[in-house]
Amino acid sequence: MIDSTYPKSFASDNHAGVHPAILDAMAGANQGDAPAYGGDTWTAAFEQRVKEIFGPQAEGFPVINGAGANMVGLGLMLGRYDAIICPDTAHIATHETGAAERLLGVKLVTVPTPDGKLRPDDITSRLSALGDPHQPQPSVVSISQTTELGTCYTPHEIAALADTAHAAGLRLHIDGARLANAAAFHSCGLDAITSAAGVDVFSFGGTKNGALAAEAVVVLDPSLARSVPFLRRQSLQLASKMRFISAQLTALLTDDLWRQNASHANAMAQRLADGLTDIPNVSLVHPVESNAVFAQLPTDVAVTLQRRYLFHFWDKAAGIVRWMTAFDTTPEHVDDFLGDLRKAALG
Amino acid sequence: MIDSTYPKSFASDNHAGVHPAILDAMAGANQGDAPAYGGDTWTAAFEQRVKEIFGPQAEGFPVINGAGANMVGLGLMLGRYDAIICPDTAHIATHETGAAERLLGVKLVTVPTPDGKLRPDDITSRLSALGDPHQPQPSVVSISQTTELGTCYTPHEIAALADTAHAAGLRLHIDGARLANAAAFHSCGLDAITSAAGVDVFSFGGTKNGALAAEAVVVLDPSLARSVPFLRRQSLQLASKMRFISAQLTALLTDDLWRQNASHANAMAQRLADGLTDIPNVSLVHPVESNAVFAQLPTDVAVTLQRRYLFHFWDKAAGIVRWMTAFDTTPEHVDDFLGDLRKAALG
Amino acid sequence: MIDSTYPKSFASDNHAGVHPAILDAMAGANQGDAPAYGGDTWTAAFEQRVKEIFGPQAEGFPVINGAGANMVGLGLMLGRYDAIICPDTAHIATHETGAAERLLGVKLVTVPTPDGKLRPDDITSRLSALGDPHQPQPSVVSISQTTELGTCYTPHEIAALADTAHAAGLRLHIDGARLANAAAFHSCGLDAITSAAGVDVFSFGGTKNGALAAEAVVVLDPSLARSVPFLRRQSLQLASKMRFISAQLTALLTDDLWRQNASHANAMAQRLADGLTDIPNVSLVHPVESNAVFAQLPTDVAVTLQRRYLFHFWDKAAGIVRWMTAFDTTPEHVDDFLGDLRKAALG
Amino acid sequence: MIDSTYPKSFASDNHAGVHPAILDAMAGANQGDAPAYGGDTWTAAFEQRVKEIFGPQAEGFPVINGAGANMVGLGLMLGRYDAIICPDTAHIATHETGAAERLLGVKLVTVPTPDGKLRPDDITSRLSALGDPHQPQPSVVSISQTTELGTCYTPHEIAALADTAHAAGLRLHIDGARLANAAAFHSCGLDAITSAAGVDVFSFGGTKNGALAAEAVVVLDPSLARSVPFLRRQSLQLASKMRFISAQLTALLTDDLWRQNASHANAMAQRLADGLTDIPNVSLVHPVESNAVFAQLPTDVAVTLQRRYLFHFWDKAAGIVRWMTAFDTTPEHVDDFLGDLRKAALG
Repeated sequence: MIDSTYPKSFASDNHAGVHPAILDAMAGANQGDAPAYGGDTWTAAFEQRVKEIFGPQAEGFPVINGAGANMVGLGLMLGRYDAIICPDTAHIATHETGAAERLLGVKLVTVPTPDGKLRPDDITSRLSALGDPHQPQPSVVSISQTTELGTCYTPHEIAALADTAHAAGLRLHIDGARLANAAAFHSCGLDAITSAAGVDVFSFGGTKNGALAAEAVVVLDPSLARSVPFLRRQSLQLASKMRFISAQLTALLTDDLWRQNASHANAMAQRLADGLTDIPNVSLVHPVESNAVFAQLPTDVAVTLQRRYLFHFWDKAAGIVRWMTAFDTTPEHVDDFLGDLRKAALG
Repeated sequence: MIDSTYPKSFASDNHAGVHPAILDAMAGANQGDAPAYGGDTWTAAFEQRVKEIFGPQAEGFPVINGAGANMVGLGLMLGRYDAIICPDTAHIATHETGAAERLLGVKLVTVPTPDGKLRPDDITSRLSALGDPHQPQPSVVSISQTTELGTCYTPHEIAALADTAHAAGLRLHIDGARLANAAAFHSCGLDAITSAAGVDVFSFGGTKNGALAAEAVVVLDPSLARSVPFLRRQSLQLASKMRFISAQLTALLTDDLWRQNASHANAMAQRLADGLTDIPNVSLVHPVESNAVFAQLPTDVAVTLQRRYLFHFWDKAAGIVRWMTAFDTTPEHVDDFLGDLRKAALG
Repeated sequence: MIDSTYPKSFASDNHAGVHPAILDAMAGANQGDAPAYGGDTWTAAFEQRVKEIFGPQAEGFPVINGAGANMVGLGLMLGRYDAIICPDTAHIATHETGAAERLLGVKLVTVPTPDGKLRPDDITSRLSALGDPHQPQPSVVSISQTTELGTCYTPHEIAALADTAHAAGLRLHIDGARLANAAAFHSCGLDAITSAAGVDVFSFGGTKNGALAAEAVVVLDPSLARSVPFLRRQSLQLASKMRFISAQLTALLTDDLWRQNASHANAMAQRLADGLTDIPNVSLVHPVESNAVFAQLPTDVAVTLQRRYLFHFWDKAAGIVRWMTAFDTTPEHVDDFLGDLRKAALG
Repeated sequence: MIDSTYPKSFASDNHAGVHPAILDAMAGANQGDAPAYGGDTWTAAFEQRVKEIFGPQAEGFPVINGAGANMVGLGLMLGRYDAIICPDTAHIATHETGAAERLLGVKLVTVPTPDGKLRPDDITSRLSALGDPHQPQPSVVSISQTTELGTCYTPHEIAALADTAHAAGLRLHIDGARLANAAAFHSCGLDAITSAAGVDVFSFGGTKNGALAAEAVVVLDPSLARSVPFLRRQSLQLASKMRFISAQLTALLTDDLWRQNASHANAMAQRLADGLTDIPNVSLVHPVESNAVFAQLPTDVAVTLQRRYLFHFWDKAAGIVRWMTAFDTTPEHVDDFLGDLRKAALG
């Protein structure tokens, strides 16, 4: 149990609360009756907003959480004996309690990647199973944007993965739990790293970017989209009072709230990273391209800091920690944290 | 799409919005940071409340929706070649898109029941498969309270089912999406129809009783409870910002808000049923014991009424409809509906 | 354990041994090395024979047992949220330990049928789920030929089911564990009740008709056939030394051995049925159209007979038994059995 | 399609035919009727033989193929959110078309091993997931004996793995498709590397050692054994005419036929390995401890040899091939092969 005297958490962007504009949007949706399961005007508005941003062929489906968005989105593209090629750091491979294996029934072909980013060669070198009845058939490539190491694919890098996947008859999926942070980093639209880059299906995460609980599956191939309502329901991802999910998503997609929140979180991570440069024995492990800072430091220094701040070791043996910022992290939070880190580092 | 000029919906209690006290509780939980995935004080408070109501051995786990609560709760008790005995009207059998078969991998042995209620004989007469390696092994009995036909099991009836199940080595599960309505009908505590009656695992539904999206799995056997965190996560039912789910559940369990909401909805259903008595060609199909009214009427009358009100046919060929009331249905809503029904019936 | 002094079993056609010609064919395949997993000349010969009988588009795949043939054949046609419409007596519904639910993850929509035969109306009346995201989507109709009650569909009846299924966008599957007995009953070719009648996928059973262990999945739609090698392997139905399975199947399909065996078994069942007419208190329950005789008789008479003969009650409460004949049942076996039955019946 | 003029295959031990004594045993089982599904005297004899060899608590269950034996044996020990720790070369991980993920629904935690052998440290270093609800819970360690690289665990090595697994609350499973070859290599009994070493469940393979199609699941923990009949049936591994499987297994376990066949195959592999020493540019990759020879040689030499002999590249890029011998490989076969290899190598 967290002690209420704890200062700002640096453990995860889902330790943060809800952005006021999103809570307001939820309260605003609490007006009388509305059809359940998505037949409401708030959901219609979200669906329309998805088409405006990602093109007329795009169909957006509100779901409840990130793992759910992944299972629904991936399930659309997977048959009974298929495999997914993904980085070995992929959330679906490491943090979803085997849902991919249990619910989708597929094998994950996991690729070691120093920076969390898959490259076209990583796909082509894993295709030898194609046609061999003794091996699951790779049919989907799944990447995370931002990656699990806080790095970001460029639009060009994503397009190259899409081209490689499609040339081999595979599809490209993005786990976009932090898609907003990547678009903010690149100062581009959400479409530039998804629909415009040839992605087939992706998730758009709201929860880590100031929502209470709201994610979306966006499908860019209409032949796949018709399966979503059935698969979403079966996968336990259909909210009965869906208007309250849709209202959150629309709020994020209105007046670029998604970008405002993500840019701020990214800036706070950059401020944190910048502040590390003159602290002895603390070094960055990956480039800071979003709201995650991976740092290496003496374990005892980290442990001392954990007495005051919530954050996780990424690799305890190597002394690597992950510090996350959020939409509501303030410069003061960061500076206080840096001050305490400096003290701990200087012993 | 619903027209905003539609009056109160009688289609489902999940067409209603959120009770103000619950929305307030959610806003109240939006205070700074809190550990994700349930390590927060709001979830601790809910867990404690569950023990107060259902006994010290009871463990409560917030989940996201009713189908999810069923899959997690049932999954705890089912092996690889098991079967569930349930009424053929069970929600898990009829409205969850085959999640029981797909996610749990089990067969549902469905029992025809005129009033939606399973009886001990329905269990004992389905046990011949036990020990036969060519048949799935019944290991769980699952009932809904209220039933899908709006009727309620008495505490004694549930205890008899529990005894029968346990005597044969099976466990008893309750889908309690509308458990509050049943306790309100019987003017008893929630424990009287669950823990005190020998139930092993049940769900407690909030969403249909004024919450935004909040259900709980309650486990009365500690040997089963240890599996919940893993199964809940894998089943896509773990909310990262769980405090906002827990706050809803605690609000319902505080000052008997659950009973206030459910009693009101039940009373409105009774008012509706009472008003039918002198409308020609309209008759009740099942006793009204909760917030559901099943009525039989000429199809054209029902269709006329549907031009103004949202509600569903339960069995169109037989001219049977289901009308649901909610925590926010008013006497005026009911009286207006009855007036319009009378007009349509008199044609 | 069976006592070696037991006379001929009337319990099942898989209590019989192996026809000598089939054992010879297996020994004949034991010549030096052959590629595993079907890349051998015996399998090629079987594949060719399938095309000769069922047409050039037909592709035959040897598998190991009947439940396996069903799971592979059905799995080809089923997505993630689908349902199978079948008689409630279907083997997949009653005797395969929930493999359909566990391995295929689908719901079985079971239809009560007095004679084990599904009719077009049974399909059309179960299609209301189509398009409803809360219900599994019917995509396959599965029937057994012969039925589980020993009756046979005519070619015309099968064509009507195929037309009805196809008109609604569903496919037609036949569990042909005893397909040979049906073709023998109708004195028609195996194709008349499968490929020529519009069936999409069927199994052809050898084991109950004199083989040691050999079944085949036959696929009439080339777009489905490409999946079989992967699904067969994953479903544990790929024999490494496949030549010994293929040799059995080819032996059955050579010089109409399949028909000779099945016709003989059918004739023995007819002889048994004919012999019942003058035994008091014993009556036929279903028309005898294959190698199964369903009879109703006093339970104590049946139990007395079971002291000497192996056979099963089909419905003990109703006093209904199932007597099966096999390729090696002799007229003397039948006459002895009838004599003992008469003695027991006369008490 | 194999050309009948091909000489002895070195591709796999399942390219070989059936040992005459086993075919005789099958013919010998073809005596009149016998109860199906294992209620026959041949199966009883096998069950008794298992107890004689592996101890009174051991229960043996005939199944149909090796992948099936793995799925049934592993399935006994795995819950809904579990993981298997195994070498990354494990057959279940590489050659069973994702059956572990699809049928068992579990994650495989694959460990790189230079020689195909798992070590206790490989277990302890993969246990950090225990207790973390975001990760599948390791509950079984699975090894292959012989390994997929032809090496063999000593009895002591297996006991160390069993101890390590058990100390952490996990169980130890052996994929024993070539268990006989390992016992032959160590000149020990089958029990020395299984029951006596603390293994919980293992498979005993017959097919690769001269049988037609016969494997067994052997369970050493009676609390697990009761599940086998149900899981075997559901997993499509129950042979109706089981006597013909059991007869094969008993034949192998009589007069040490299993050892005679395996020792001969091992000796032929050793002869092949010995003959490589003076062939230029050909070297052994792994110690030859069974009937597999892994060699590295120039790709063009291998390709030349493949024009005459069936065998597979293990890693084409690295020029590594796998040559397998069988119970019926003769010294002449080996010498001819060596002669042809020498010619190809000398160009």
